[in-house]
Amino acid sequence: MLLHGLSLLAGAPGQPGGKTFHATNPSTNTQIEPAFHEASAAEVAATLTASAVAFTAYRQRSGAERAQFLEAIALEIEALGEPLIQRAHAESGLPQARLIGERGRTCGQLRLFASVVREGSWVDARIDPALPNRQPLPRADLRRMLVALGPVVVFGSSNFPLAFSVAGGDTASALAAGCTVVVKAHRAHPGTAELVATAINRAIVTCGLPPATFSLIHGGGATIGIAMVKHPATAAVGFTGSSAAGRALFDAATSRPHPIPVFAEMSSLNPLFILPGALAERGAAIAQGLLTSFTMGVGQFCTKPGLVFVTRGPDADAFQHTLAGLLPSAACGTMLTSGIREAFLEHRATITATPGVQILAAGSAAASATRTEAQPSVATTTAKNFLAHPVLATEAFGPFTLIVVADTADQLAACATALEGQLTATVHGNTADLATAQPLLATLERIAGRVLINGFPTGVEVCPAMNHGGPYPATTDTRFTSVGTAAIFRFARPVCYQSYPDALLPDALKNANPLGLLRLVDGQPTQNSL
Amino acid sequence: MLLHGLSLLAGAPGQPGGKTFHATNPSTNTQIEPAFHEASAAEVAATLTASAVAFTAYRQRSGAERAQFLEAIALEIEALGEPLIQRAHAESGLPQARLIGERGRTCGQLRLFASVVREGSWVDARIDPALPNRQPLPRADLRRMLVALGPVVVFGSSNFPLAFSVAGGDTASALAAGCTVVVKAHRAHPGTAELVATAINRAIVTCGLPPATFSLIHGGGATIGIAMVKHPATAAVGFTGSSAAGRALFDAATSRPHPIPVFAEMSSLNPLFILPGALAERGAAIAQGLLTSFTMGVGQFCTKPGLVFVTRGPDADAFQHTLAGLLPSAACGTMLTSGIREAFLEHRATITATPGVQILAAGSAAASATRTEAQPSVATTTAKNFLAHPVLATEAFGPFTLIVVADTADQLAACATALEGQLTATVHGNTADLATAQPLLATLERIAGRVLINGFPTGVEVCPAMNHGGPYPATTDTRFTSVGTAAIFRFARPVCYQSYPDALLPDALKNANPLGLLRLVDGQPTQNSL
Repeated sequence: MLLHGLSLLAGAPGQPGGKTFHATNPSTNTQIEPAFHEASAAEVAATLTASAVAFTAYRQRSGAERAQFLEAIALEIEALGEPLIQRAHAESGLPQARLIGERGRTCGQLRLFASVVREGSWVDARIDPALPNRQPLPRADLRRMLVALGPVVVFGSSNFPLAFSVAGGDTASALAAGCTVVVKAHRAHPGTAELVATAINRAIVTCGLPPATFSLIHGGGATIGIAMVKHPATAAVGFTGSSAAGRALFDAATSRPHPIPVFAEMSSLNPLFILPGALAERGAAIAQGLLTSFTMGVGQFCTKPGLVFVTRGPDADAFQHTLAGLLPSAACGTMLTSGIREAFLEHRATITATPGVQILAAGSAAASATRTEAQPSVATTTAKNFLAHPVLATEAFGPFTLIVVADTADQLAACATALEGQLTATVHGNTADLATAQPLLATLERIAGRVLINGFPTGVEVCPAMNHGGPYPATTDTRFTSVGTAAIFRFARPVCYQSYPDALLPDALKNANPLGLLRLVDGQPTQNSL
Repeated sequence: MLLHGLSLLAGAPGQPGGKTFHATNPSTNTQIEPAFHEASAAEVAATLTASAVAFTAYRQRSGAERAQFLEAIALEIEALGEPLIQRAHAESGLPQARLIGERGRTCGQLRLFASVVREGSWVDARIDPALPNRQPLPRADLRRMLVALGPVVVFGSSNFPLAFSVAGGDTASALAAGCTVVVKAHRAHPGTAELVATAINRAIVTCGLPPATFSLIHGGGATIGIAMVKHPATAAVGFTGSSAAGRALFDAATSRPHPIPVFAEMSSLNPLFILPGALAERGAAIAQGLLTSFTMGVGQFCTKPGLVFVTRGPDADAFQHTLAGLLPSAACGTMLTSGIREAFLEHRATITATPGVQILAAGSAAASATRTEAQPSVATTTAKNFLAHPVLATEAFGPFTLIVVADTADQLAACATALEGQLTATVHGNTADLATAQPLLATLERIAGRVLINGFPTGVEVCPAMNHGGPYPATTDTRFTSVGTAAIFRFARPVCYQSYPDALLPDALKNANPLGLLRLVDGQPTQNSL
C-alpha cells in the first residue's frame, strides 16, 4: 500500500515542500519510509475554513445518512486489511493481535455511534406545546433539541493508534453529532493516520458528502496544534495525551476572543485501595491481577493502576512478597516511542529517588534501548511519606506502580482525600470490608469518573453506561466522557424553536414524530405523535 | 422587617467592620438604609471551605429531600410577604406588579426544579449489566448516573432581583442538582438579597440541612468576586450580567490550577428579521409589538430586540413611519441604577453618532436624571453601513432599537451571517416568506440559542423545552441553558459504578429501580427493574 506522506486536506493531498519527518519503528529504532510533509500555516487555515463551509451542509444530513457514513468508514477501514495492521505494528511496536483487537474496537465504535444517531433519541427532544388560553399569559409553542456544535479539531493519542486516533472515539462521536472533523495526525504513527484518513475519504466519496467533512493534517507539534485550536472556525477540541500538551491547548482555547470547549483526557494514577479482608482472603490473586493490569500494553494505558494502597500488617507484607516474587518473570516490552520511554525512565527515577521510597522488585530481563524497552517494576513507600511528597501522586506512564502502606484505616482515608482528579479509582474488599466502605467510596466518587469494586481499571468498555473522564487533572471537563455513547454530548448544543410551523421544524420535533423518537412532551417521556 | 446589613455565612451573620455601602432608590436617587457591610477576604475563604464540607453531606440527600428543601424555600419567600416586594421596588425601581409576577416566577421555578428532582430521571441513569460469558472478553456490570458537581458560586443579575438573583434559576438548579451555593449579592439590591437569604436559611433549618448549604456574601465588585471564583473549593460559577464582568470571571476560572466551568449569560442583540410579505401584511402590528417588546422593563431584558432588519421599499418606509408615530407617546421609565443609565446613554450616543445612523423617533417626554429615567428611542441605518461598523452590533442595554434597511434579500442574509452569538433570533414572515426562509433560519439557528417565528423574544418561559443560552458572546458555554429544567445539567457530572454490589449502589441505579426512574438498560429506555 503506497503512502504519499502528505496531509489530506478536504479530499485533496497537501502540498509537499515544507519540513518533513519520518516515523520510527520502536522495536528496532530504525526510520520507516516514506517522509511525511508538514502542512503549512496557510493550508491549516484554509482547511479549517473549508471545514466550516462543509459543516453548513453536513450538519443538515439526517441521522440515517450520518449512520451510513460511519458504517462506510468502518467498512473502508476493514478493507485496508493486513497492511494497516502491519504499518500500525511497525510504527507503534504494539503486537499485531492487540492491533487487530483495536481495529475491531474502532469499527465497533463507529457502528455503535451509527446506531445511536440512526435511532436518534440522543438529541433529547423536548416539546412544550402552546397554551393559548393560559392565564395570566399564554405559552408559545416551544421545542428544543441538540444540534451539532461546529468543526471539531481532534488530536489523537499515541497509545491507541486506531481506537483513539484518526477514526477513533473523538472523530466518531463528532461525526455522529453532525460536526465536521480536522485531525492533527500523531507524529508517532503518520502512516497509520494516512491509511485511515484515506479510508474516511473513500467513505465521504461513497456517501456523497462534502470533501471537507474530514481532513488530516501532518505537522510539527505545538505551533500547528495551537493554530488549529485558535482558528475562528474551530468549535471544539478533542485531545488525548500529556498534561502539558492538554493544558496548553485548553489555555489556547479559553483565551480566544470566542472561547471554545476542550475535551482533554490527560493523566490519571487510577488508585487501588485494598481493604484488610480482601487482602487476607485473596492477596495473592490481587497481586497477580495487579501485575497483569499495570504491565498490560507496557503500562501505557490511561487507566493503568499506578498507586496501590494497603494497610500495614502481615497480609500487606505477604501481598508485597507475592508481588515481588512475580515481578522477575515479567517480560520487558517495547514502548511506543523513545520519547515516551525516556519520560518514563526519568519519571520513575524521580519517584524511586524520593526519600522513603524503596524499589520492591523488577523484571529480571534487562531493557534494551534499541528495542525501546521498559522493564516492569514496583516500588513501595509509607502513607506518611506519600502524603509528604506530592510528586509520588504524579503519573509515570509505563509499567510501574507504587505500593503505599498506611498505618491505619484513617491514614488510608487521608490518602484518598489527598488525591487529585482521576479517571478511575478501585476498592478491593470482602463483604465485611464493604459494609464499612461507604465513606471511602463516597470520597472516591468525588475524585474519579469511574469507581470499581473488586476489579482492575484497565479495559474500558464502549457502551452507554461507560464514563471515561474525571475531575481535573484527569480531564479538562469532568462533565463529559470520551468513551461510550454519551461522548456524543461533547459536540452538541441545544436550540429552542419557538412557534415554528410544523413543516419548518427539524424532523425530530415534528408533530407526527416521523423518526419515532422518545421525546419529552409537556415534561413526560413519550414516543407518541402530538 | 429589620435588615441587619450583614452577609449570611453558613447560617451566621458576617462580621461588621469592613467597608460599607448603601442601596439607592433609583426612582428618587436617594440612599436607602441600612448600611451593608462587605465581607472580608478571610470570611469569603472560610465560607467556601465550609460550603465544601457541607457539600459532602448535602450531595447525599435524596431527590425527595432536596425537593422538600426547594419547596420550603418557595414557602419562606412567599412568607416574606409585602416587605420583600416593597424593598425590591425601592432598590430596583421596578413596578410592584412586575415584582409580584417575578416572585411568582421565582417560587414557580423552585417548585419546578423540586418536581424534576423528586421524579429523578434527570440523572440519566444507564445500566449495562455484566455479560460474564461474552467472547472474547466478559463485560463487567457498568452503571452510570449524573451526580452533583460541588459548591457553586452564583452572581445574580441586576435586572431580575428575584428570579435571577439570590434564589433565582442558578441557585435553584444548583441546589436541585445537589450542589451547595454561595451567592455574591448584587450591590444594587442588597436588602432584597438579605431578605431572600434569610428565607433560604429558614428553609435550611426546617429541613435539618447543614447551615453552609447556602451563604450570601456582600462585597465590593471584582476583587471579592474573583476571589470566590479562584477559591479551590468552588466547582462552578453561574453569572448573569455584563460582557466585561462575565469574561473576567471566565478568565479567572479557566486560569486556575484546576479550571472550573463558568456559565455566564452576558449580552445579546436579539435580532428580528422582518421578511417582505409579513412587512406588507402586518407591518403596523409588528411595529406595535416591537415597541412593546423593546421598551418592556425599560429595555432591560437580556432578550430585548435591539436590531431589526427589513428590506428597502414602501412597506419598510411605512413600517418605520408607523413606529415613528408610536414613539412619542412611549413613556420614560426608571432604570435599575444610575450606572446602568449612564452606560445606556453613552452606548446609545456612540451608536447614533456613528456615520450613517439617523435617529428615527423618541419618546416626547424628557428623561429625568433624578428619577434615573431613560427615554425610548429608535434609530435607523442601512445594511451596508451596519456591516461597515461593528459597533452597531453591540448591545445598548435599555429602551433602544436600531432598524437596519437592506437593499436586497442577499444583503439581509449577509447581515445575519455577520452577527455574533445571540440568545435569540426572530423571523417574521407570511407563508410565502417562510417557504423560502430555510437558509436564513439555518443561519440563525447557528448563531442563536432560540429561534422564533412571528413572535417577540422577550418573555422566557420556564419549562423543559426552553433554551436560554447561545454561542459566545451571548454566553460562555453554548452547550447549556440557564432557564428551564435543563439548567440543572450545568451542575452535574457523570460517574460510572463498576461491579458494585446492589446495596452499595445509589438508589437510582439499584436493580429494583426503587425510585421508578426511566433508565437506559442495555441501551433501551425502560422503567422496569432488572
